[in-house]
Amino acid sequence: MNRILILGGDGYLGWPTAMHFSRRGHAVGVIDDFTRRRCHLERGTDSLTPIAPLHERVQAWEQVSGERIAFWVFDLCDYGRLRATIEAFAPDTIIHYGEIPSAPYSMIDRDHAVRTQIPNVLGTLNLLWAMREVAPDAHLVKLGTMGEYGTPNIDIEEGYLEIEHNGRRDRLPFPKLPPSFYHLSKVHDSHNIHFACRTWGLRATDLNQGVVYGIHTDETQLDDRLLTRFDYDELFGTALNRFCVEAVIGHPITVYGKGHQTRGFLNIRDTLQCVELATRHPAAAGEMRVFNQFTEVFTVLQLAEEVHRAAAHLGYAAEIRHVDNPRVEAEEHYYNPTHTGLLELGLQPRLLSEELIETMLHTIERFKDRVRLHGIAPATRWR
Amino acid sequence: MNRILILGGDGYLGWPTAMHFSRRGHAVGVIDDFTRRRCHLERGTDSLTPIAPLHERVQAWEQVSGERIAFWVFDLCDYGRLRATIEAFAPDTIIHYGEIPSAPYSMIDRDHAVRTQIPNVLGTLNLLWAMREVAPDAHLVKLGTMGEYGTPNIDIEEGYLEIEHNGRRDRLPFPKLPPSFYHLSKVHDSHNIHFACRTWGLRATDLNQGVVYGIHTDETQLDDRLLTRFDYDELFGTALNRFCVEAVIGHPITVYGKGHQTRGFLNIRDTLQCVELATRHPAAAGEMRVFNQFTEVFTVLQLAEEVHRAAAHLGYAAEIRHVDNPRVEAEEHYYNPTHTGLLELGLQPRLLSEELIETMLHTIERFKDRVRLHGIAPATRWR
Repeated sequence: MNRILILGGDGYLGWPTAMHFSRRGHAVGVIDDFTRRRCHLERGTDSLTPIAPLHERVQAWEQVSGERIAFWVFDLCDYGRLRATIEAFAPDTIIHYGEIPSAPYSMIDRDHAVRTQIPNVLGTLNLLWAMREVAPDAHLVKLGTMGEYGTPNIDIEEGYLEIEHNGRRDRLPFPKLPPSFYHLSKVHDSHNIHFACRTWGLRATDLNQGVVYGIHTDETQLDDRLLTRFDYDELFGTALNRFCVEAVIGHPITVYGKGHQTRGFLNIRDTLQCVELATRHPAAAGEMRVFNQFTEVFTVLQLAEEVHRAAAHLGYAAEIRHVDNPRVEAEEHYYNPTHTGLLELGLQPRLLSEELIETMLHTIERFKDRVRLHGIAPATRWR
Repeated sequence: MNRILILGGDGYLGWPTAMHFSRRGHAVGVIDDFTRRRCHLERGTDSLTPIAPLHERVQAWEQVSGERIAFWVFDLCDYGRLRATIEAFAPDTIIHYGEIPSAPYSMIDRDHAVRTQIPNVLGTLNLLWAMREVAPDAHLVKLGTMGEYGTPNIDIEEGYLEIEHNGRRDRLPFPKLPPSFYHLSKVHDSHNIHFACRTWGLRATDLNQGVVYGIHTDETQLDDRLLTRFDYDELFGTALNRFCVEAVIGHPITVYGKGHQTRGFLNIRDTLQCVELATRHPAAAGEMRVFNQFTEVFTVLQLAEEVHRAAAHLGYAAEIRHVDNPRVEAEEHYYNPTHTGLLELGLQPRLLSEELIETMLHTIERFKDRVRLHGIAPATRWR
């Protein structure tokens, strides 16, 4: 039994992670200040799935599982509360999802760039100091993103690169080309965490996660009050999830530009598996271990075609539409990222299948009356 | 004639830079919120040289030179004022010194880490957005630091590295190993600036500066009211400057650890030359050009010995004392950074000489009664 503290434990991945560990007998605590819910409030958008307030979620979880999840509502920028909560809860593992995760949100204007980058960086900075002061042996499992790397013209390694230059060698942080102020915030975090590990001997695992898809985990299926959020808007909805909603509601499947942008993807259930593997096998003191957390590589257009095919089999007449790419990104590029670390720890990938997409489409069908159309089309432009 | 806006124009380098450009017929504006003066107030320390308030400096400069320097007092975190000032002044070049520059200050505790990193990152982020909105063709000359690189076991290139990996090649940002939260803030800036250049087509020169020494420039010598600050305390005093003060007042010359730490150094007059060269030869639209800005490499112990020798010739009985290294840093390491970019633009280095040190010692002698002893010994520890 471990004591596991989850920052951002009310989110798409945080809440399923909390239930996953709780069900396996661990003592779970959650911190969240509902930033994501407030971002949706601001934009007039919402989760497709009707999610319960955190207060109700933890009650429902106790009724369903018999297990208690502790929770605290505050901003990670509040150092006093963060430090005190960590000291009181005494976690073995801190899983940090507590950041704004949207590239387009960070590109809306100066205000949103700052509202993304500063709290993300400050929250993690506070966390590192709090760990140093009151939990120096805890293991930080930090969610990064594959987007930190951008699309360099060389193979992407897991966090570090063996470099030979003018006859000398070193293993150095992999150079980063992040494509938004959000992705930049994760790069800043990675540098801050690396420093804290090197200098103070903290232990951390930085999970550079690909794009997550899926609605359900074993626990979210137990009761509708345990559903996790499912975003499909231009700001928080990611490719596959958004495409599935578009297909069900008869909206064109919107592919940005040519759709040859290539990315790593994984099932939400595999996120839980990866985070559990990282937790069960902590980094060493002084180590910032980096894993590239995804199971398959697709182009955006391939995903659109997969959704199109599965939707057609279920009788949805979806159309793929290429729209002007609102982002500044290469639409034709080399992409070959390594992702062996988590496989070596025992990850058993659940690969994308038509069956999985059909299951998603069925769940979306249940909630399609909740869809708000105004937030789907890409309105946020990089230039 | 160019319009040159200097952020941090009240500082050690900013004020001499303002006078340097003003004397050469450029329209100069200065923004500062006196952060450095306030940091000294907080710590009970001060500049060795008695510096006039900015309000008096610009008056004195007008009397001495006949030239006006415009100035505004506000925090770069105030986006509204920054944007409005840039729009009104319409600079061709923005020289950005406006950040807290101290590694030990950033390592005092969580509060000082945040007070260094967040305003530094936010100020630059605001500047990038303001440039995008109201000065997209201006050239940003940003002061970074050689400390961003740390001490890798390979030659340090200027900002980027040609990497061959598994048979493919790319030119990528040079990997960074910054050794403090301050140095990290500059790494974060570099990533944010690089993104803004790639994505919005801004033009920037990132000057990764070594350790600056010296008291005088041509303009500071014209009138005592034009003196620039000279710090010798553990937080803001850098190696050579601090050693000279120690020698004059009969304090041991304090070398941290073995003193084999190797760094790049340059004369304050060469800082002005470098910044002028960068300004006269702007980066291209979309380019973040990086120069390593130093003229010579020394170990800390070599500098201490140079000061010891020069001081002895002037009759000061200084002693070199090795103190426990308060920092976490390699005391024996490889160090071979490239610095050809500025030489190619025409930099004529003024190398360190005994004569220069003697001149510094004479100036320090004039002000030695102002020395405050309590801030000299290293009290801030990395662990």
